[in-house]
Amino acid sequence: MNQIITISREFGSGGRELGRRLSETLGIAYYDQEIITEIAKRTELDEDYVRQITENKPAAPYPIHIGVSFQRTVNEMFMQKVTVFREQCNLLKELAERSDCVIVGRCADVILAYLNPFRIFVFADQASKLSRCQARAPEHEKISQTEMERRMRRIDMNRARQHEMVAGIPWGAKDGYDLCINTSGKEIKSLIPAIANYAAGWFGEKG
Amino acid sequence: MNQIITISREFGSGGRELGRRLSETLGIAYYDQEIITEIAKRTELDEDYVRQITENKPAAPYPIHIGVSFQRTVNEMFMQKVTVFREQCNLLKELAERSDCVIVGRCADVILAYLNPFRIFVFADQASKLSRCQARAPEHEKISQTEMERRMRRIDMNRARQHEMVAGIPWGAKDGYDLCINTSGKEIKSLIPAIANYAAGWFGEKG
Repeated sequence: MNQIITISREFGSGGRELGRRLSETLGIAYYDQEIITEIAKRTELDEDYVRQITENKPAAPYPIHIGVSFQRTVNEMFMQKVTVFREQCNLLKELAERSDCVIVGRCADVILAYLNPFRIFVFADQASKLSRCQARAPEHEKISQTEMERRMRRIDMNRARQHEMVAGIPWGAKDGYDLCINTSGKEIKSLIPAIANYAAGWFGEKG
Repeated sequence: MNQIITISREFGSGGRELGRRLSETLGIAYYDQEIITEIAKRTELDEDYVRQITENKPAAPYPIHIGVSFQRTVNEMFMQKVTVFREQCNLLKELAERSDCVIVGRCADVILAYLNPFRIFVFADQASKLSRCQARAPEHEKISQTEMERRMRRIDMNRARQHEMVAGIPWGAKDGYDLCINTSGKEIKSLIPAIANYAAGWFGEKG
């Protein structure tokens, strides 16, 4: 069976960087933006729209009509979301069955549970997450600390909702993961060798 | 500053074994029963009684009188508990300031917070904890599964209460730890090399 590592993470905890670096160290596939591109191709929807839906970005604006036409628009959007999530689910399974890989987010820990993945949850204290978010925001997108905190809360709340919808168990509750890593005040790259070592041991014993 | 590793753990998750093996691999001190012996010496209380108080074992029976004498007995017991916890607190600080070490339980993660310890929480699913508890129970102490589950719940509830009393934050909530390790279905010794590696990296970066 392939060795699948899933990374769930709080916004700003460095989980995406951790996943990418871990895949490089282990020499296995890393799926991130390719997933968006492929779903967009399969559903014939716009990449940005797919990204908004699957990555808990702020909701896309939609035209507001009244009566029947409003209902239809809301229903259509709902159906598009269902289609996107279904395609994401299929794609994750295809990718995970193809080779060893690291997948960040996308409820992969639950969707791929039948492959017994090594499930990591990455978290950090508020100050560390805030400073990481501020540091990585492009210059033209600098926002106030209050606005950044609001964005962090909203994104994590959406992640939690999506996870609970798919999994029926709370997002971030340690019992749903094999290893929960606190990155507060840590450089992600300094943690990678040990996490790679841990993952290898975890799969080693299983095999 | 010394490198201090604190292990908090759910009853039956293998946390104590993990702590002992980790100290052996890292070649640093491991404090466990010595703490009981030393507290008993300092407080002039019986070792078993100190163990009962500090390790959340079932409460020691005490003679029930009526009126004033009953009150006095309860008060005396309360004062003895306070004395034991105070001595434990002093002792933990002395040991941690003496050399690198691993300490299991005893709210060491909170009491030694000023030394910035590497805080591990060890947990597992109910089935794994139950089977570990059943396997390690001495032959003459075999009890039913229901009774074992009751004991596990009681001990963890006492640990949680004690931790919340000392720390003011919930026991087992991942935010209070640097690494949370799920030992479900795992042999503790197979996890040790990677945890030792992780701890070394964690202190390495700090230093």
